[in-house]
Amino acid sequence: MFKLDLHPAGRHFLQIPGPSPVPDRILRAMSYPTIDHRGPEFGALGLKVLDGIKKVFKTSQPVVIYPASGTGAWEAALCNTLSSGDTVLMYETGHFATLWKKMAENLGLKPEFLGLPGIEGWRRGVQADMIEKRLREDTQGVIKAVCVVHNETSTGVTSDIAAVRRAIDAAKHPALLMVDTISGLASADYRHDEWGVDVTVSGSQKGLMLPPGISFNAVSEKAREASKRATLPRAFWDWNEIIEMNKQGYWPYTPNTNLLYALSEALDMILGEGLDNVFARHQRLAAACRSAVNAWGLEIQCADPAVYSPVLTGVMTPEGIDADAVRKLIYEHFDMSLGTGLGKVKGRMFRIGHLGDCNDLTLMAALSGCEMGLRLAGIGLKGSGVAAAMDYLTSHVAKPALKAAA
Amino acid sequence: MFKLDLHPAGRHFLQIPGPSPVPDRILRAMSYPTIDHRGPEFGALGLKVLDGIKKVFKTSQPVVIYPASGTGAWEAALCNTLSSGDTVLMYETGHFATLWKKMAENLGLKPEFLGLPGIEGWRRGVQADMIEKRLREDTQGVIKAVCVVHNETSTGVTSDIAAVRRAIDAAKHPALLMVDTISGLASADYRHDEWGVDVTVSGSQKGLMLPPGISFNAVSEKAREASKRATLPRAFWDWNEIIEMNKQGYWPYTPNTNLLYALSEALDMILGEGLDNVFARHQRLAAACRSAVNAWGLEIQCADPAVYSPVLTGVMTPEGIDADAVRKLIYEHFDMSLGTGLGKVKGRMFRIGHLGDCNDLTLMAALSGCEMGLRLAGIGLKGSGVAAAMDYLTSHVAKPALKAAA
Amino acid sequence: MFKLDLHPAGRHFLQIPGPSPVPDRILRAMSYPTIDHRGPEFGALGLKVLDGIKKVFKTSQPVVIYPASGTGAWEAALCNTLSSGDTVLMYETGHFATLWKKMAENLGLKPEFLGLPGIEGWRRGVQADMIEKRLREDTQGVIKAVCVVHNETSTGVTSDIAAVRRAIDAAKHPALLMVDTISGLASADYRHDEWGVDVTVSGSQKGLMLPPGISFNAVSEKAREASKRATLPRAFWDWNEIIEMNKQGYWPYTPNTNLLYALSEALDMILGEGLDNVFARHQRLAAACRSAVNAWGLEIQCADPAVYSPVLTGVMTPEGIDADAVRKLIYEHFDMSLGTGLGKVKGRMFRIGHLGDCNDLTLMAALSGCEMGLRLAGIGLKGSGVAAAMDYLTSHVAKPALKAAA
Amino acid sequence: MFKLDLHPAGRHFLQIPGPSPVPDRILRAMSYPTIDHRGPEFGALGLKVLDGIKKVFKTSQPVVIYPASGTGAWEAALCNTLSSGDTVLMYETGHFATLWKKMAENLGLKPEFLGLPGIEGWRRGVQADMIEKRLREDTQGVIKAVCVVHNETSTGVTSDIAAVRRAIDAAKHPALLMVDTISGLASADYRHDEWGVDVTVSGSQKGLMLPPGISFNAVSEKAREASKRATLPRAFWDWNEIIEMNKQGYWPYTPNTNLLYALSEALDMILGEGLDNVFARHQRLAAACRSAVNAWGLEIQCADPAVYSPVLTGVMTPEGIDADAVRKLIYEHFDMSLGTGLGKVKGRMFRIGHLGDCNDLTLMAALSGCEMGLRLAGIGLKGSGVAAAMDYLTSHVAKPALKAAA
Repeated sequence: MFKLDLHPAGRHFLQIPGPSPVPDRILRAMSYPTIDHRGPEFGALGLKVLDGIKKVFKTSQPVVIYPASGTGAWEAALCNTLSSGDTVLMYETGHFATLWKKMAENLGLKPEFLGLPGIEGWRRGVQADMIEKRLREDTQGVIKAVCVVHNETSTGVTSDIAAVRRAIDAAKHPALLMVDTISGLASADYRHDEWGVDVTVSGSQKGLMLPPGISFNAVSEKAREASKRATLPRAFWDWNEIIEMNKQGYWPYTPNTNLLYALSEALDMILGEGLDNVFARHQRLAAACRSAVNAWGLEIQCADPAVYSPVLTGVMTPEGIDADAVRKLIYEHFDMSLGTGLGKVKGRMFRIGHLGDCNDLTLMAALSGCEMGLRLAGIGLKGSGVAAAMDYLTSHVAKPALKAAA
Repeated sequence: MFKLDLHPAGRHFLQIPGPSPVPDRILRAMSYPTIDHRGPEFGALGLKVLDGIKKVFKTSQPVVIYPASGTGAWEAALCNTLSSGDTVLMYETGHFATLWKKMAENLGLKPEFLGLPGIEGWRRGVQADMIEKRLREDTQGVIKAVCVVHNETSTGVTSDIAAVRRAIDAAKHPALLMVDTISGLASADYRHDEWGVDVTVSGSQKGLMLPPGISFNAVSEKAREASKRATLPRAFWDWNEIIEMNKQGYWPYTPNTNLLYALSEALDMILGEGLDNVFARHQRLAAACRSAVNAWGLEIQCADPAVYSPVLTGVMTPEGIDADAVRKLIYEHFDMSLGTGLGKVKGRMFRIGHLGDCNDLTLMAALSGCEMGLRLAGIGLKGSGVAAAMDYLTSHVAKPALKAAA
Repeated sequence: MFKLDLHPAGRHFLQIPGPSPVPDRILRAMSYPTIDHRGPEFGALGLKVLDGIKKVFKTSQPVVIYPASGTGAWEAALCNTLSSGDTVLMYETGHFATLWKKMAENLGLKPEFLGLPGIEGWRRGVQADMIEKRLREDTQGVIKAVCVVHNETSTGVTSDIAAVRRAIDAAKHPALLMVDTISGLASADYRHDEWGVDVTVSGSQKGLMLPPGISFNAVSEKAREASKRATLPRAFWDWNEIIEMNKQGYWPYTPNTNLLYALSEALDMILGEGLDNVFARHQRLAAACRSAVNAWGLEIQCADPAVYSPVLTGVMTPEGIDADAVRKLIYEHFDMSLGTGLGKVKGRMFRIGHLGDCNDLTLMAALSGCEMGLRLAGIGLKGSGVAAAMDYLTSHVAKPALKAAA
Repeated sequence: MFKLDLHPAGRHFLQIPGPSPVPDRILRAMSYPTIDHRGPEFGALGLKVLDGIKKVFKTSQPVVIYPASGTGAWEAALCNTLSSGDTVLMYETGHFATLWKKMAENLGLKPEFLGLPGIEGWRRGVQADMIEKRLREDTQGVIKAVCVVHNETSTGVTSDIAAVRRAIDAAKHPALLMVDTISGLASADYRHDEWGVDVTVSGSQKGLMLPPGISFNAVSEKAREASKRATLPRAFWDWNEIIEMNKQGYWPYTPNTNLLYALSEALDMILGEGLDNVFARHQRLAAACRSAVNAWGLEIQCADPAVYSPVLTGVMTPEGIDADAVRKLIYEHFDMSLGTGLGKVKGRMFRIGHLGDCNDLTLMAALSGCEMGLRLAGIGLKGSGVAAAMDYLTSHVAKPALKAAA
């Protein structure tokens, strides 16, 4: 096997905000022998995962599963619903919102990019009132869709999607609502139907705890109606044939069989734990992480506590400190991967992932690695973040993690 | 884990023409923990597989690896090089050629579909003279690309791509040559550079022995030039940013990490065995399989011995016999999956895959299952195909399969 | 990883009479992370496997599981029940019976070795009348135990244990009955309680489909009584402390945790299929195998059809043919391992295993490999064994192997 | 699969002093298909592991590998070298020394049990002067062997074996020196040849990072000589036939094939890292762990800094605190397993394992779990052990853990 073990001993700590660590259960499931994607076992598998994934999106409408990574699902959302030259209102929450906007341009759409000025927009959630205002102005209905990112992976901000829905409704605007929750799904609460989202885009390698390679579009009736008029060329991403064949548990082209095994296992794990328990666990770990950052005296990238992400925490390094040099030092000394600062915040922050298959001691390991690395980098810390996180965790005891004996 | 073991004992025989059985070595490689796709280990992995895959395509030009299944790579080939309304000359070798043509239509291209009439075209390879004739007529250069399938998975015909190249050259036509060798690569000889192919499309789940989920475009300089003028919208499939970032071993968006582990292992296996040995092994097994079909007195779908496929053999059932009922009987009694007849030949034939990680005894098991199933189905056989295959294998002894002691 | 793949392509066929091929399900189960053998999860695992294994032995009495291979369980049976100098009546069915006798000598016991003269005893089962006669002569009760092998792995003979029980009873002799069914358990019917066996010895790597490394003693009340008086030194093998701690699901010393995961999975598979179905499957495959040997015109090692083994078939090569040279040729050309002739029959026969996770097509592959190898070795065969086996299998159709849809 | 995941999310921290966490590389190696233990691949595997394991024991003499867990290797050491009624001088370092003495009694030997009185002996290493004194008294040579434990797993004390050797030599006594380094091997420096040990006993599930199920006897020439005169019954454990067959890489009975794959991989890892690096890593982590215990104001079980164990640290809980209640609380809240107090110290201490595949952040996770658990248990701590450990690790920077790019 290709030598990937550059570190001599012990487990690598993968604390980036995705891909998140894939649990052994899922790795084992993924190694089940590949089967005939036209045979009866496959149909049973297909129906199971198509049903289970709806529960995670909190929808009773179709969820399309693509044998492609998340960026593809962004494209699918756009090309199934829009036509060349259509105006879409997008909101700049950070690097990934910016990339989605760039994709819209590449596909021949006309994105308008709302947002707070400068770095400020990258530290706060979607400002629904700005969206409402813009939509009210659009009396001609030029805007065909509103596109926002639920959990902005580049910053650690989880926007209020229900508020965006209310803004669109308040403006009485017919635009579609399209939401990227690639890094939010199955870590932060998400409600495709209740929030009236038309297309929700997500991926496998975050809260679902899979390796990358599968992505999703949850699709409303209104979105499917729009798809009938949309003229952007589409074939691989086309919803219709997939949704039709999914009724029997199959796909029109070769699906990603072994990742569907993994998805099946992940659904068993997530729905077995209970979505509410999953969300509460993420909130608790995220709060402990923030208490550490506060204790260090460093700034949290997200400036609005109402929209702190349960998935990751962005940590700003002091002026003059290259965050990537700190990351590299931590990687080399403590065998831990942290997320880099992207785009506008490159070199100014690093990101700690605490999503997916994470628990108290994994977080403590991660925070210890950060604290030791920050010290080795010569950064003066106000206090011990590790101590603060332990205080938080012991004063917010989770109901004992042990299940009743099987 | 989701119960996929519908059969009580023993190993399932997956003898469809892809996905092919994934070797244990590759399943194990795939279960290596997911790593940071921005970290140094990943870069080393990326460079390794990007280099190795070129050897399999026999090219020194870029090979783009997509985190998507093969159908996506078809789309990539078209949308990177063509513009809405462009005429493309496609050739009907079977079901997959037909699907590719349908995709071209969906993307707004104008495919012309050459081919022999009726079922005849599905029993022979690409007729290069028909292509030459058509291109000579196109004095205006309306045709922008010639698209052919190398190994037609639906029939078991491996067309002569060098002949297509010569036809284009003879017609002095500037069209691009685009070839689908999704099921041919790493099983049948293929020479991207020598044959002057501009875009070669392939996938993971056939000769490469991986699970589905990765696909490829090998790209010529001429194709990259064409991409500068091509105006079909593209983002996910766009070659340029990928090729640029690949120089360091990375991808612009999240790659399919665990399948790249699998690809790395597959390259070690294939290049370790030696491409010529791999091809010879496939040819020998295919010949043994055909000797069985002949002995049964059944017709081979491919009517031209010059283009028999080393990957799979299509077997026509006698008039009045539903091939799918035979397949079902074999599946239920002998725990083996065979390929179904697709499109025009549905119910009239079944397909035996003998590609990828196959050896003499696996083929004999497959042929035994077919012979017993044909007998249980009440089909009168002229003789024993199993006996004929054993005759072939013992009279064409491979150089001993055992490697020199490690 | 150490390169063990000496063969370039395809799956190796492991058709020795044990270790038998380990199913993927079991290999995956075995890779579950090692846990604390004193923690609550372990206790639950321990109770589960201790309960399930009793069903396989058909006993309600304790089954001791050793973290050691089968030879150790032979020693355990002897040293828990006997004292230095004790006479034991052993019966020569073949090589393994001979090895057990040699072990008895090494431990300071006095084995008497009954059996038919010469090679004849290696072609027939235990002659219970000889045992009865000898026990009747032993009016002083000098003989402390009768030791027989249920399924003699070196020859392919499955003796009638109930008859041995009847012989002991008829002689009204107090000796313990100790039976080795290392290669018979979970392949051939076995009834520890009903047959009045005092100690049954078995192992993991045959019908249980595990890798080697776990072995068993099923223990009667009478055997436990005997253990109170037995004075052979014992510590690791001592039943008492193990049986005591097993009540809570634990062991006095570190158990073989990962192989217990495998055992748990194997029990799910075997009890899920149903013991009677498992036995019927073995009988059918063994009959098909014998029909092949007969068709070849070769002799089956077992000369008494009443005691043909469902586990393996011994095949005698014609006078002057070195069976091991044939095995080597088959190994090198067809990537299949067959069992060698052992002891008295070395070089005169080879053994085909058809036990454990075997099905129709795996057997057909094995027989094809044998037939091709015998032909390449220049041995004149009377006819095609492969054809005969297909005749047998198609005329003795198993109830369809497919389970009802899950 | 049997549900062993009692914890809903994240990885369990197995911080007992063995079984230690099995690295993924080893779990994967262990899942390689079981092969014929009489075939050529096996011979190559056997020779490789037999050669590699000698390097770990630092011996050029035979190392016998048993398909049995460590307790069996204790028995093997005794029964190969001694006769019923022989006197052996054993030294009480803790629970495992006591168990070995109990085994000696069970086997009919006469152990004399030296040691410091009461709990004191469980807090210090072997007192070589006491051994020397006793041997000098034994002018008749009644004592046949001196048996000591190198790393006492129940307490966290690593005795000075070279000093024991010197003591025997100083007394000019012919007794064999037998050493148990079940939990020390491959974590603490060990020199079978240089220290003149006659039999070294070890196991798989500690520093070698394997699951339990394999154990070892490294054997001197003098021990082999003694075995010729030793009369304790032996068969399974007998060295001679094993050593003889090992010359070709095989075993006289079925070896533990899949655990030998694991051993092969472990040897690649350990010898690849380099034994000196392995030992230094253990020393550094152990020192960090002790700095934490000191900071908490708790007492380390080992009272003599010269013999602190690099493998584990025993932590004494304050008077009146039930250490097992603390362990249970930590297990339930923080999903971590710690070692229990055994024998004389039951309920008075717990044990933190930091052996095998351990690194800085895993240790920090473990110490965080301990510190939070101790606080939740209401135990007043003097200070933060976690902070102290971070101080230690950052002021004793390991040479960067990252290997040079592969």
